[in-house]
Amino acid sequence: MQFETLTPLLRESETKLVLLVMDGLGDIPSTQGGQTALEAAATPNMDRLAAEGILGRTVPIRPGITPGSGPAHLALFGYDPLQYTVGRGVMEALGIGMHIGPGDVAARGNFCTLDSASRISDRRAGRIPSEEAKPIVESLQGIKLEGAKAEVQHVKEYRFALVLRGKGLKGEIEDTDPQVTGAKPLLAKAQGKGSQKAAKLFNEWTRKALKILAKQPKANGLTLRGFGGDPRLPKYKDIYGLKAACVAVYPMYRGVSKLVGMDLIKFSGDSPADEFAAVKSIWAGYDFVFVHIKKTDSMGEDGNLEGKAKIIEGVDQALPHLLALKPDVVAITGDHSTPVPMRSHSWHPVPLLLWSAKNMYADEQTQFGERFCAKGGLGTMPATDLIPLMLAHAGRLEKFGA
Amino acid sequence: MQFETLTPLLRESETKLVLLVMDGLGDIPSTQGGQTALEAAATPNMDRLAAEGILGRTVPIRPGITPGSGPAHLALFGYDPLQYTVGRGVMEALGIGMHIGPGDVAARGNFCTLDSASRISDRRAGRIPSEEAKPIVESLQGIKLEGAKAEVQHVKEYRFALVLRGKGLKGEIEDTDPQVTGAKPLLAKAQGKGSQKAAKLFNEWTRKALKILAKQPKANGLTLRGFGGDPRLPKYKDIYGLKAACVAVYPMYRGVSKLVGMDLIKFSGDSPADEFAAVKSIWAGYDFVFVHIKKTDSMGEDGNLEGKAKIIEGVDQALPHLLALKPDVVAITGDHSTPVPMRSHSWHPVPLLLWSAKNMYADEQTQFGERFCAKGGLGTMPATDLIPLMLAHAGRLEKFGA
Repeated sequence: MQFETLTPLLRESETKLVLLVMDGLGDIPSTQGGQTALEAAATPNMDRLAAEGILGRTVPIRPGITPGSGPAHLALFGYDPLQYTVGRGVMEALGIGMHIGPGDVAARGNFCTLDSASRISDRRAGRIPSEEAKPIVESLQGIKLEGAKAEVQHVKEYRFALVLRGKGLKGEIEDTDPQVTGAKPLLAKAQGKGSQKAAKLFNEWTRKALKILAKQPKANGLTLRGFGGDPRLPKYKDIYGLKAACVAVYPMYRGVSKLVGMDLIKFSGDSPADEFAAVKSIWAGYDFVFVHIKKTDSMGEDGNLEGKAKIIEGVDQALPHLLALKPDVVAITGDHSTPVPMRSHSWHPVPLLLWSAKNMYADEQTQFGERFCAKGGLGTMPATDLIPLMLAHAGRLEKFGA
Repeated sequence: MQFETLTPLLRESETKLVLLVMDGLGDIPSTQGGQTALEAAATPNMDRLAAEGILGRTVPIRPGITPGSGPAHLALFGYDPLQYTVGRGVMEALGIGMHIGPGDVAARGNFCTLDSASRISDRRAGRIPSEEAKPIVESLQGIKLEGAKAEVQHVKEYRFALVLRGKGLKGEIEDTDPQVTGAKPLLAKAQGKGSQKAAKLFNEWTRKALKILAKQPKANGLTLRGFGGDPRLPKYKDIYGLKAACVAVYPMYRGVSKLVGMDLIKFSGDSPADEFAAVKSIWAGYDFVFVHIKKTDSMGEDGNLEGKAKIIEGVDQALPHLLALKPDVVAITGDHSTPVPMRSHSWHPVPLLLWSAKNMYADEQTQFGERFCAKGGLGTMPATDLIPLMLAHAGRLEKFGA
């Protein structure tokens, strides 16, 4: 739904909304008639919410389209990912607390290993651990460019983020990662005239970096990917009237949340209970809290059905801490499906549970699971419809027209 | 669906279509697992149609958006209310039976109380009752303007409707209500050059009105809002090839029907039987009849579950009179939901029953009610899809493409 229609309908309210996302939640059975992780998991708390609430399924992008994590979250946040595109470099940079302003261009960087002919022999530099990679990234922080400022930060293992800040920089630039070993890293190449200045600067930075890296045994090369500038997304406060907080462990999800104007909450630990405790600590100051659970996706990627079910059970066991805060509206869903038998993201619709303290039309479904959601009262709907539905149930929308 | 796609597919046909709208029909149970009014009502005739036909649910505007009656009916009539907007002044005027033609501009008026410095001290003039306000409105009916005719009618309490009729009038004019007390009412200000003439005339009318109101203790001021002209909607005959009639008691629904080119049928009485008798009286001369039942909505607004169910039962009891006319296609639905526990319009999807003498894919549902409709074969669909589906079942649409 277009924000120019929704935003004028906003009504002041004290209600509080929670969006709990278990990454890659959606699944398909590993054997015909078998149970998915969500179906197999014992989830008495979610099942109670399912009985009192309404189920359905979300389509993150479009039917048949497998989403990346960024677009999938944008969709859940109410932004059509076909309309609002964000470079992955921007997400990576924002996720580790780097600022992206107008005129900045960000890229994701990978260290790689080059052979004597400067061809890539390992695209991930032997997956060097963070302790090893961090000082290498720091050795690149002194690189100076003419007409722009370069900022580089370590992300994780062999990965870093690079942001160039200057005037008139645009990020329509092709990846320098050739995607195969045995090939040389490519030059950053502008896709349009407007991005030529930035492409030149990225190449200059890379040349200087290679000199510094030359003596490294593993990380003696680098590739840059996912170039992009500030997407200038409309902010939650402006479009939904929501003071919003993000409780997430992984940088990517924190990054997307920051793009839409959520405050990133600092907390220690990474269990569901830790995350819900973080929610509690900031509860009074916010209208909307997004909580992100990563490990459901990781278990899906590992093809670990039992592991995925265990993670879901862990979330369910901690859930009473969240519910004790008495949120007015709770949505529990995934950003996309990561089916165990596929070991990867997929296009399958994602289970959705919507619960509201008021104004609820409860369907006949009594358990949270793929089979129940397929028959749920919300039907199968675009993920972008979720926030308007949450706002409606929270009493935050006026009538449209007379 | 865009009319430019639909209209070229029209085929000549003798078939007759009936759209029966029970206003605010949709509901949610008042207690968990409880029945809605439509579920509780004994509706043997509708249940037979449900068994022979197909059920579903309509979304009037967009998911989560609570519709006003005007946009909700436009959607049912096949006009996307985000694309086809009608000024609130026009709706208000239509609602009390005032005519809106090309070149007319309508506005909603509020009486307010002004202090000695002409600042608003009460935006609703102490919510003076209708008995008090009506003669005040009548005192304004003699106001003469140069180049336009002014028509003013009382609506309810402190509210009235004002229509200016002249040549070259356009209604893109900003509200004169400053929305706060302590400020003076604003001047009517044209948003574009084309509306300057009308803005000037509204200001002239307001000046003259203020002189007349000067001695009123409470209603000594006024503000004007929701300016708008004839929205010039495409007409049923032109877009659907349908000679269409409206059988409705309340002015608002007759007004919207007139906007889309329906003939307004005169009849006496206001019971469902009276309305179906009116349908019978004009049956031979029309292809499409829209019948509007108001009281389901009123009972919903009153929070009267039993009352709402009784109204529905009354419609069902009278239904054989309508079915005896042997319509080819019948759709029974609401324009929006007015859930009893909410006592107001809501965003919840609206039950829909589609029956056709021919070409029917009957689903497995055998009763007309929210729970059955949620599982119905039509799914949950935009309200604007209904008329194309009715036309298709009526054999009024050619194949698209070869």
